[in-house]
Amino acid sequence: MTDYNAPLTDIRFLLNEVAGLPDIARLPGCEEATPDLVDAVLDEAGKFAAGVLAPLNAVGDRESCRLEDGKVITPQGWTEAYKAFAQGGWVGLGLTPEYGGQGLPKCVATPVWEMWFSANTAFTMLPQLNTGESEAILLAASDELKATYLEKLVTGEWGGTMNLTEPQAGSDLAAIRTRAEPQADGSYRITGQKIFISYGEHEITPNIVHLVLARLPDAPPGVKGISMFLVPKYLVNADGSLGAKNDVRCVGLEHKLGIHGSPTCAMSFGENGQMGGGAAGWIVGEPNRGLEYMFIMMNEARFGVGVQGIGIGERAYQQALAFARERVQGRDAVTGAVGQPIIQHPDIKRMLLTMRARIMAMRALAFTAAGWFDIARHSPDKAAADKARRYVDLLMPVVKGWCTETCQQVCYDAIQIHGGMGFVEETGIAQHYRDARIITIYEGTTGIQANDLVGRKVLRENGATLRELIADMRADAGRLIADATLRDIGTRLNVHLDALERALEWMLSNGRERLGAVLAGAVPFLHLLGLVCGHWQLGRVAMASHAATARYAADYLRGLREVAGFFAATLAVQAPALATAIAAADAAAISSDAAFGAG
Amino acid sequence: MTDYNAPLTDIRFLLNEVAGLPDIARLPGCEEATPDLVDAVLDEAGKFAAGVLAPLNAVGDRESCRLEDGKVITPQGWTEAYKAFAQGGWVGLGLTPEYGGQGLPKCVATPVWEMWFSANTAFTMLPQLNTGESEAILLAASDELKATYLEKLVTGEWGGTMNLTEPQAGSDLAAIRTRAEPQADGSYRITGQKIFISYGEHEITPNIVHLVLARLPDAPPGVKGISMFLVPKYLVNADGSLGAKNDVRCVGLEHKLGIHGSPTCAMSFGENGQMGGGAAGWIVGEPNRGLEYMFIMMNEARFGVGVQGIGIGERAYQQALAFARERVQGRDAVTGAVGQPIIQHPDIKRMLLTMRARIMAMRALAFTAAGWFDIARHSPDKAAADKARRYVDLLMPVVKGWCTETCQQVCYDAIQIHGGMGFVEETGIAQHYRDARIITIYEGTTGIQANDLVGRKVLRENGATLRELIADMRADAGRLIADATLRDIGTRLNVHLDALERALEWMLSNGRERLGAVLAGAVPFLHLLGLVCGHWQLGRVAMASHAATARYAADYLRGLREVAGFFAATLAVQAPALATAIAAADAAAISSDAAFGAG
Repeated sequence: MTDYNAPLTDIRFLLNEVAGLPDIARLPGCEEATPDLVDAVLDEAGKFAAGVLAPLNAVGDRESCRLEDGKVITPQGWTEAYKAFAQGGWVGLGLTPEYGGQGLPKCVATPVWEMWFSANTAFTMLPQLNTGESEAILLAASDELKATYLEKLVTGEWGGTMNLTEPQAGSDLAAIRTRAEPQADGSYRITGQKIFISYGEHEITPNIVHLVLARLPDAPPGVKGISMFLVPKYLVNADGSLGAKNDVRCVGLEHKLGIHGSPTCAMSFGENGQMGGGAAGWIVGEPNRGLEYMFIMMNEARFGVGVQGIGIGERAYQQALAFARERVQGRDAVTGAVGQPIIQHPDIKRMLLTMRARIMAMRALAFTAAGWFDIARHSPDKAAADKARRYVDLLMPVVKGWCTETCQQVCYDAIQIHGGMGFVEETGIAQHYRDARIITIYEGTTGIQANDLVGRKVLRENGATLRELIADMRADAGRLIADATLRDIGTRLNVHLDALERALEWMLSNGRERLGAVLAGAVPFLHLLGLVCGHWQLGRVAMASHAATARYAADYLRGLREVAGFFAATLAVQAPALATAIAAADAAAISSDAAFGAG
Repeated sequence: MTDYNAPLTDIRFLLNEVAGLPDIARLPGCEEATPDLVDAVLDEAGKFAAGVLAPLNAVGDRESCRLEDGKVITPQGWTEAYKAFAQGGWVGLGLTPEYGGQGLPKCVATPVWEMWFSANTAFTMLPQLNTGESEAILLAASDELKATYLEKLVTGEWGGTMNLTEPQAGSDLAAIRTRAEPQADGSYRITGQKIFISYGEHEITPNIVHLVLARLPDAPPGVKGISMFLVPKYLVNADGSLGAKNDVRCVGLEHKLGIHGSPTCAMSFGENGQMGGGAAGWIVGEPNRGLEYMFIMMNEARFGVGVQGIGIGERAYQQALAFARERVQGRDAVTGAVGQPIIQHPDIKRMLLTMRARIMAMRALAFTAAGWFDIARHSPDKAAADKARRYVDLLMPVVKGWCTETCQQVCYDAIQIHGGMGFVEETGIAQHYRDARIITIYEGTTGIQANDLVGRKVLRENGATLRELIADMRADAGRLIADATLRDIGTRLNVHLDALERALEWMLSNGRERLGAVLAGAVPFLHLLGLVCGHWQLGRVAMASHAATARYAADYLRGLREVAGFFAATLAVQAPALATAIAAADAAAISSDAAFGAG
């Protein structure tokens, strides 16, 4: 029932026909991504995901993690699976070969990570932390720190964590209180409490490398006074062997709605006194620039959470589709025939098509965006690289915000299709619904993504990049209209682009005087842009389907066009309503507290 | 954090100013509902809900139920709370005084049940089952059965259950296999397995009265061969005392996503042999008319689940509002001020207003519909009674389907407002999200509600009642437009009614030839009608606010108008998009399986 099959046909189609992998593989630094190698990587990843990680997903949910004498016990099978994962070279798939990574382009790594998330999101958070941490260290740390820690993280020999949140500092990192005292030898002593630290403690790897945000004694207040420190669980001797235990402890585990297999730790740094006060740490980069380093990584980290949305959604979809093809219930409303599987019922079919269309739209957008990352980083054509960077910057909050929100709807429908069985944990479908609920929250809530989109990405540059993107989408709408078989998709895309432009103009003309009203419309605006981008991407998929007849089954290609048409006609169609709601959102600047009720 | 305050001001306003209680209280049979009595009932219910039931909600979630030696152990405090509940006369609040009920109008009973659901839905399912069962017995059972069982059920001395579902017969009751063998003494022997039976076994009441759907030996196949039987846990002696244990057993409990405090039992009837084969049962009404009795009750039962949506939504809203007023995080985007509670952030305010607007729209619709039940039942004006009955029949699938779906969105936002704390079970907000997930499924999924709406309530009568309702809503739109302070609400209502009419005409003109396409649009149509009805009801609320200035605080009344305007401008605005999607829903009649992917 909870089997997972890697969607390799979809992945290959989108990579090769839509996201531009053949061109990206010709960029300097991406040459290793030959068709043969990419095929082999995807095949192997699909097998490992389905064979090793997917069966452990329900185990993690059922067993959860527990804290015993300061040790965190992860679910059965976790450690063995992780060892095989690291030995397979999967941790560093997209990381630099200089420190043991495979150096594959992001657009190749992205579908691989999607498969890991489908198979087992709670498990995959562990290696995902290594990638973010490795990027931060590569970006900002001293050569000495790099030499000591980076390869261990890239290869997955040691685990990594990000220690940002404190009880009073969730979305608001300005409120961080953890302190760092400089020592005579150039190291620091870190003291404070962090919460919500994923994999903050475990026995899976022999060491854990914590990145910790903290304040120096002379730091300015607010976000400009936050520095980043590397704090290992065990100190590392000069020869690379493990030394004394650092003063870092897990003091509690959260009991969560989902991702039970991932330990969410409350961490205490330097409060046990065994190091003589403070945990030993080393500064990463320069003082007071910690948040800046975080934000440079943030685009990638948020992108990864968006991909979680695709992965969890795909898993829920596969399970719902299998159930709908098996479960016999009711009679055919049109023919009256009995003994039909429920997939024949129009409403079940509508839900499955909705799920499928949403997943393909998200996936096409994410893979295309992954390609922009690669172009931005590797293209010798400066104009192309700059444009790709602009698009990445503009759309990262959309990939994160829209894909994670859309995933919730996919998982919601997956339960609904199961009827009463969907509410019973034994079926396994509820786990996806529970697991998914965190992804619209961590790495910045949807509200924060939307503020980033509207504030930093649109208003600040007066909509320039978004206008550039709209022009590209208009051009594709024109191409769609020129093809008689895809005309409806193009015509509708223009209607939805009109709505997007209306909303954009409203935001630009109200942005300064009525910032509160504009920000009240930020989340609807993020949804609007996500829907239009999804529509656009599926339009590109539909066009690509006509060019790929030699390489894919005709049925499969026709199915892609049907899904694109369905998305345009029944989902993206919300765009005008969202534009209307955004312009009316000044109602959210309602003055009276009484609107919230008399209670 | 999880305190509950009965929203008595909202309830009184809606009952008296919108739902027409003063007129209903003048109908024959409703005279007891004097203002003083209604006030006292609401006050007492609010106290009992907040003081007794609400604190047990988290207890039930945490402890769950367990099966030990065939006995079901319910959470701590459940039995004592139930005894107090029954002694307070709350079970039979809206049931006939002839058998021990209070006989209050449905529009008074409805807000009381809303409060129970807010306080503790898992608990409240127990007495709710008594009301449904009492109605069925009153409607169809013999005088002898009534004499033996009805007062026990109406007063809550004994518990009740509904045994419909079997593993192969969920939404499809035609597939029921449980058998009933007639005996020489006029009784029957029942044999079979039922699943998903809420409160199928427990020790809270000394006896449990099961209503069981089963087939007689000579029954025709399908839904026309289903009869209804009464099967007590303990046989009842002639003097009313309890006799031998019947052959009815709970053989398993489901491990569910939510409503953990409510035991969901797999029941075995007559398979233990202790009665010599079969469980002793008595037929309710005539053979082969079981489903018909079920359906007559169904409007009321579905209405009750719609009210669960309001109740759970209100509880989640109160908790999110309290959190947003307390939690300090981030700086004011407009003024830059720090130390502000998050309710100041425009996106948090948007979510809270959205929750509040949705709850008030649902509540106004449900209370108004409850008033229609009363008018249909009690009005001596036959035309008025008939019209109320038509509206009840038309809108019950909307109250059930739309209120339960809308509740999910309310609970979703409640988690989102909590940020990371929303994902931690300790906060309690996730429980509402989990508990709520069943209500779009049981008593008929949203898809089944929508099929009922489109098939039986709209197409079958060629849209007559819906046109009548639209004309009433148009008249109110005209009244709103005539008031300069409410003009926008009225203007928008007309736009949304245009969309509803477009969708209706499309359905009527395609209903016969393309029934599959029409049914694929049934759920979007249900949402469309729900949104328009919600907009209409809040328009009525806004108008009533102007007429009620002598009785309510000016701030409160202004808040109601603001909420009405917000709903019209940012939520009901989806109506045209839904109408467009419905007309395009023939895409759901997509022929190729390939649209579901290559997997």
